[in-house]
Amino acid sequence: MTLSTAAQHFQESAIRRIGALSGSIPGLISLSAGYPAPDVFPWDDLQAITAQILARHDGNTLQYGATRGYRPLIEHLIKNTLPARDIHARFEDVIITSGSQQGLDMVGRVLIDPGDSVIVELPTYSGAIAAFHNLQASLVGVPQDADGIDIQALDRAAADLAKQGRPAKFIYVTPNFQNPAGLLMSARRRRELLDTARRHDLVILEDDPYGSIYFEDVTTLADTRPIKADDTDDRVIYLGSFSKILVPGLRVAWMVAPNAIAQKVELCKQAADISSGVFDQRIVHGALAGGVIDRIAPGLRAHYQAKRTVMEQALTTHLAGRVKWTSPRGGFFLWIEMPGIDDRQLFERAIEEKVSFVLGSAFFVNGHGHEFARLAFSGINHEQIQDGIRRLAAAIKRSTD
Amino acid sequence: MTLSTAAQHFQESAIRRIGALSGSIPGLISLSAGYPAPDVFPWDDLQAITAQILARHDGNTLQYGATRGYRPLIEHLIKNTLPARDIHARFEDVIITSGSQQGLDMVGRVLIDPGDSVIVELPTYSGAIAAFHNLQASLVGVPQDADGIDIQALDRAAADLAKQGRPAKFIYVTPNFQNPAGLLMSARRRRELLDTARRHDLVILEDDPYGSIYFEDVTTLADTRPIKADDTDDRVIYLGSFSKILVPGLRVAWMVAPNAIAQKVELCKQAADISSGVFDQRIVHGALAGGVIDRIAPGLRAHYQAKRTVMEQALTTHLAGRVKWTSPRGGFFLWIEMPGIDDRQLFERAIEEKVSFVLGSAFFVNGHGHEFARLAFSGINHEQIQDGIRRLAAAIKRSTD
Repeated sequence: MTLSTAAQHFQESAIRRIGALSGSIPGLISLSAGYPAPDVFPWDDLQAITAQILARHDGNTLQYGATRGYRPLIEHLIKNTLPARDIHARFEDVIITSGSQQGLDMVGRVLIDPGDSVIVELPTYSGAIAAFHNLQASLVGVPQDADGIDIQALDRAAADLAKQGRPAKFIYVTPNFQNPAGLLMSARRRRELLDTARRHDLVILEDDPYGSIYFEDVTTLADTRPIKADDTDDRVIYLGSFSKILVPGLRVAWMVAPNAIAQKVELCKQAADISSGVFDQRIVHGALAGGVIDRIAPGLRAHYQAKRTVMEQALTTHLAGRVKWTSPRGGFFLWIEMPGIDDRQLFERAIEEKVSFVLGSAFFVNGHGHEFARLAFSGINHEQIQDGIRRLAAAIKRSTD
Repeated sequence: MTLSTAAQHFQESAIRRIGALSGSIPGLISLSAGYPAPDVFPWDDLQAITAQILARHDGNTLQYGATRGYRPLIEHLIKNTLPARDIHARFEDVIITSGSQQGLDMVGRVLIDPGDSVIVELPTYSGAIAAFHNLQASLVGVPQDADGIDIQALDRAAADLAKQGRPAKFIYVTPNFQNPAGLLMSARRRRELLDTARRHDLVILEDDPYGSIYFEDVTTLADTRPIKADDTDDRVIYLGSFSKILVPGLRVAWMVAPNAIAQKVELCKQAADISSGVFDQRIVHGALAGGVIDRIAPGLRAHYQAKRTVMEQALTTHLAGRVKWTSPRGGFFLWIEMPGIDDRQLFERAIEEKVSFVLGSAFFVNGHGHEFARLAFSGINHEQIQDGIRRLAAAIKRSTD
């Protein structure tokens, strides 16, 4: 039995590995899992919606479905959800995927040949690294500052790759509250990114799972305007998801893509899983069309904003001067820089102190990032956040003593 | 924008294309869609199970889940479902997939490099053809007779490929009530297949979505004994599914694989969709552990057996002497041979008569099969089966007049 070349080099997700480890240690506080908080899931609404759907005994509810997705769900997206973000799409541009992770994999399968270059941010989402790596892409990292991706560095990287005869297949970015860095790309930087992509004739893959989770004390909806909204020459693939604004256990996300790509993604998905779960899609549609998602959104923003504040206060109390961070304006994560500390050594101490985080280096494609750590405040409560940071401070103290 | 080499050659599923066409013609009777019958879905049980699951407000129900699958579901499979088919697996050999289609894709990704050979039956499941084709496999067909795959032809094909320096990566078979041919591979043939695979050191990919749907008037459970049950040297990958014995709208299937393959499939799935739907898996586990699946199975067998009888009677009434078939001993399909008729021409006539079927040639990897058609009796009622065959007979009459 010989494995495929790709399989011989499949990469394990650092987050998932840490997750498995964390689950096996009693009393451990996980600052590693970027899970939404189950206490803000709309349980009663979901109970009512599922009961209503099943009570109809409509065979189509539990039958095989269209590969492209449940039509009323797509129609709601193109008539309501997307126009509210200034994205105007046609039915044939949209595909429902099993989470945005499937969107990343499918875009990769449609665009990447082994050895092809893909430009990503430094740091970037580790699940995207794994998806593109598993397709044997060559990943090229471009640094970010507080406003987002460094345009001059991007320009240079794109030019270098083109000169080497292997122009990048696409640029992967998460402009809103990036996992892991929590950064919000500025409006100006978004325009410059689009201009740069045009100049080099590059596709942009815009991943936006956290766009609706902006913190209203420092951010407005307008600040999160998708790059796709200004995509006048059809070069942006946009990924949206219900995982953070409803629940991740229903695997439903969507992709808006240039039609040539959408068509190929549909064929790829047809042979990859026929369709996403039909029942899942009906439940999500019920929550979307019934106004549940709009109704709970302000509460989610307030919920995660409060947790961010608790984590920042705890960091200030226990670690001021030892670590640095940019205050997150949305999302689930706080990204800390720890000068003079190695994330791998710290991780061992942290596990001894019964707290976990994700190694900063897991989000870098260039071997760097060992002075960083990703801390998730999303899925745990205020007390756990405070205890977690206290334990992390103890681990850091031991690392630097 | 340049597509990947694979994407440039992605294949559309003939079944799905016909499905889309059929949906747009009012009054058409579909003999093409191999759907389970929604009137035998256990609606009341599924309502009770989902209500119970959601009433618990257990956050894990709607949260991200383990890539490998919901642990109690896997444990039920290895303790009950699989031993009942004489398959003895460990936890680490099993992975939950989003339908068996995902199992096919994942096995392909783990084993196939572009240009690699894969041996399939003539005819074989068109969704498997699409999955392997999309991974740029070279598909080699081996004929079947009434007892299953032709062992001498298989032996020759395997030897030829080895001699050419490109030994087959695996043999894909559906021993129980194959889609499309409806054949049941004999016990002796299964043993010979396993011996042949051993001799050539080949992996067998055994797809078994219909194994539980055997027709008790002519078949017993023992006749459907999986090849995996006699896999003493760990070369068989077994795919089972809940799509036909519960519902396909919950995308839940499972794979039992040699551990080296299971590990790679888990990594592949991790980056491809993180996990299958957690809520779907809990519902399926509820139906499995609560005895629903065992309770409804005899009724499903009787239901589809009756439909097979109705279709055979209609064929005898309207098409005796014009078409030939082997009586299906289980499953969803009746496979007819139509000497002197071309499936493409017949299809045009059939659409005019408002009946659809799937072209026989869609199931062949060697360009043949144009004198065959796949007729599904599973998803429609007795009257529709009778009307459908009457219309098909009218189309065949016009094709041969």
